[in-house]
Amino acid sequence: MNKLFSFRLIKTDGAARRGEFVTPHGNVQTPVFMPVGTQATVKGLMPDDVQATGSEIVLGNTYHLMLRPGAERIATLGGLHKFMNWPLPILTDSGGFQVMSLSDLRKLSEKGVTFRSHLDGAMVELSPERAVEIQALLDADISMQLDECLKLPASAEEITRAMQLSLRWAERSKRAFEGRAKQGYALFGVVQGGDDVGLRAESARALTGMDFQGYAIGGLAVGEPQDVMLKIVAETTAALPADRPRYLMGVGTPHDLIEAVKRGIDMFDCVLPTRNGRHGMAFTRFGPINLANARHANDSRPLDEQSAHPAARIYSRAYLHHLTKANEILGAVLLSTINLAYYQTLMGGMRDAISSGRFGDFQAATEKQWAQGDLPVL
Amino acid sequence: MNKLFSFRLIKTDGAARRGEFVTPHGNVQTPVFMPVGTQATVKGLMPDDVQATGSEIVLGNTYHLMLRPGAERIATLGGLHKFMNWPLPILTDSGGFQVMSLSDLRKLSEKGVTFRSHLDGAMVELSPERAVEIQALLDADISMQLDECLKLPASAEEITRAMQLSLRWAERSKRAFEGRAKQGYALFGVVQGGDDVGLRAESARALTGMDFQGYAIGGLAVGEPQDVMLKIVAETTAALPADRPRYLMGVGTPHDLIEAVKRGIDMFDCVLPTRNGRHGMAFTRFGPINLANARHANDSRPLDEQSAHPAARIYSRAYLHHLTKANEILGAVLLSTINLAYYQTLMGGMRDAISSGRFGDFQAATEKQWAQGDLPVL
Repeated sequence: MNKLFSFRLIKTDGAARRGEFVTPHGNVQTPVFMPVGTQATVKGLMPDDVQATGSEIVLGNTYHLMLRPGAERIATLGGLHKFMNWPLPILTDSGGFQVMSLSDLRKLSEKGVTFRSHLDGAMVELSPERAVEIQALLDADISMQLDECLKLPASAEEITRAMQLSLRWAERSKRAFEGRAKQGYALFGVVQGGDDVGLRAESARALTGMDFQGYAIGGLAVGEPQDVMLKIVAETTAALPADRPRYLMGVGTPHDLIEAVKRGIDMFDCVLPTRNGRHGMAFTRFGPINLANARHANDSRPLDEQSAHPAARIYSRAYLHHLTKANEILGAVLLSTINLAYYQTLMGGMRDAISSGRFGDFQAATEKQWAQGDLPVL
Repeated sequence: MNKLFSFRLIKTDGAARRGEFVTPHGNVQTPVFMPVGTQATVKGLMPDDVQATGSEIVLGNTYHLMLRPGAERIATLGGLHKFMNWPLPILTDSGGFQVMSLSDLRKLSEKGVTFRSHLDGAMVELSPERAVEIQALLDADISMQLDECLKLPASAEEITRAMQLSLRWAERSKRAFEGRAKQGYALFGVVQGGDDVGLRAESARALTGMDFQGYAIGGLAVGEPQDVMLKIVAETTAALPADRPRYLMGVGTPHDLIEAVKRGIDMFDCVLPTRNGRHGMAFTRFGPINLANARHANDSRPLDEQSAHPAARIYSRAYLHHLTKANEILGAVLLSTINLAYYQTLMGGMRDAISSGRFGDFQAATEKQWAQGDLPVL
C-alpha cells in the first residue's frame, strides 16, 4: 500500500524551515528544488543523471502533457513515472499558468477555461475537476488545484475577482480529489491575490480552512521586482499553517531561493538551471558564468574544482566554451547537469544550515562568494 | 612509454578478418565501428555513455577541429583525449573530405589546398605536412594522410590525376610523420581511384610500397550504388597487405558493414547512427524503425527487449515516439545511444562469427531478421 502523504517539520531557524515530506514514491527533504520536466523529460538529461545531481522530485506540466501525448495515454502506459522512467516523486502543476502564458486564445467562465492548443489549434476545456482528473491519470504524487493566473499589472478589481474564483475552484478541486487523498496522494491549494498583501492573506486563510495537504504561492515571479515578491512571500507564509509544506511556484534564481527559504518557503521549481544551461550559462558558487564568453577559450580549469558533481570538475572551461560556441547538444546537456547540481548543492547547504541553526551565516558566506565573482582570467 | 602501434590478424573466415590493433591509448578489436565525434563530441552523448555502447575508439574531424577551437589550442589544453574526456583511442581524418564537401571555395595545387572556412569565411591552407602536424597536435592515435577527394562522377582523366596527386601527398605525409611513428602512433595511407578498379589497384600497390601502418579506402559512399562500392572494396582489399588494418571511410548502413567485412574491411566510421538518431530513426535487429510514425504512440513495448543496452530495453516505443514528436533533446540522446549500441552489437556479432568460422551463418540470420521487419503493431 502507498504511504500516506505527510509533512514533518524538523527544525526552524528564524522563519526558515527544515522538513521532510512523504509521498507514495518516496520521501523528500525540504527545502527542496524540483527540476522542471515539462514534456515528460528534464530537457536533455537521462533520469539517472537527474538523480545524480541530488534531485529527489521533478515537476511535470499538465498543460503540455494533456495536449501531447495526452493524459489518458500516459495512464494506459502506466503513469508518468513509468513513462519517463523516473521512479521518485513527481509534482504536477494544474495547467492554469501555461493556459495563460502559451495559449493565444482563452475563454474563462465559472465552470473553467477553454483554450486553444498551441500545438494544433484545437479548442480544449480545462475545469478544476478535469485538472484533478488529468493529474491523477499522470499519477502525480502531488497535484495542484486549477487557479486563474493573471498577467500583472491588473486592476485591484480583477485581482480580487480572480482570487475569489480560484478559491471556489479550490473547493471544487478538493471535492474531486477526495478519493485520491485516501490513497496517499496530495493536493495543494494555490494562494493568489496578485501584489496585494491583504488579498494574499485572505486567500491563504480561506485555503487553510479547506485543509489542503500543502499550499502553493502562485502568480509571482511574473516580472515584479524581487522585493515585491519577497514581501508577498513573507506575508503569505505568515498566514499559512506551520505543519504543511509551502511551495513558491516558478522561482527562481539562487538568490531568490535563499531569500524565499529565509521567509519560510519549502519547495521550488524553475526552468532557469536547464534553460540557461542550454544557452551557455552556468550557475556556480562564483555566481553565474557565461561560457560563450571568449575569456574561457583557453582556460584549462574546470568550472568549479570543489563541485560535488563530476561534470563541473572534469570538463575544462575551454571545452564548455567550445561546445557552447559550436552549438553542440553536449554543451546543453553538461551545463544543465552542472546547473542542477549547483542548485541541489545550494539547497543541501541551506538544509544543513537550518539544521544547525546557522542559516544567516550560510547566506552571508554564499553571497560573499557570489560577490567576489568568478576566478580571474588565466 | 607508449606502446607501438601494431596490428594482429587473429582469424579469417573467407575474406572476413578478426583482428586487434594496439595504440598508445589502448587496444581495439576488429572489425570495429568508430562513432563520429566531429567537433570533439559524439553529438549529444557523454563519453561514459559512448563507452557503455561498447565503443573502443572514436573519430575526430580535422577540418572542424582546426577551424574551431583550433589544433594548437587543443594541444595547449592537453590534446583531444583530455579536451573531450575520451581516454580511449582516437582516429582523425585529414580534413580533405570536408574541404570538398563543406567549403564553397577551394583552390588546389601541388602544394596543398587553400579553402574558405564555412565558419567565418577566412582563407585557410592545408598541406600534407600541415594535416600531419594538426593531427599530431590533436594527439590522434591514428592519423590519415591528406588526399584529394573528388566529387563523382568525374572523368577518368580527373580521377587519375587526383589519385596520382594523392600518392605524392602520401609520400610527403609519411616523411612528415616519421618521428611520430617511433612514438607508437600510426599513419594510414588512403587509396583513391574513384570507381575504376584498375586505378584503385594501382593506388593500393603504390601505397603498400610506402609501408603505412594501415590503409584506408577513401572516396566511396559518396552516392554510388552499393554494388559498385562493394566491387571496389573487394578489388582493393585484395591488393592490400594482409598484415595491416583496412579502413573503409564514411561507411555505412548495417548492411554495408556486413558486406564490407565480408570483403576484408576491418574499420568503419559513419554519422548514420547518431545523425539518424537525432531525426527519430532507430537501428535495431528488426531493421530501421521510424519513431516519428504514429504506430508507436501507444506501444508500451521497448524497442528491443533483447538489446544489450538498457536504453533499448527500458524506454517504451511510445515514450521515444513522444520525445521525437516533441523534438526533445532526450529523444536524440536516447536514439543516438541505442543506435550506437546496435552498431556495436552488430560488430561484436561479426567478430564472434569470424572467430568461430560461421560468418556466413551470422550474415544470413541477421539479414533474415531484418527482412522479417519490425514487431507487428500492437
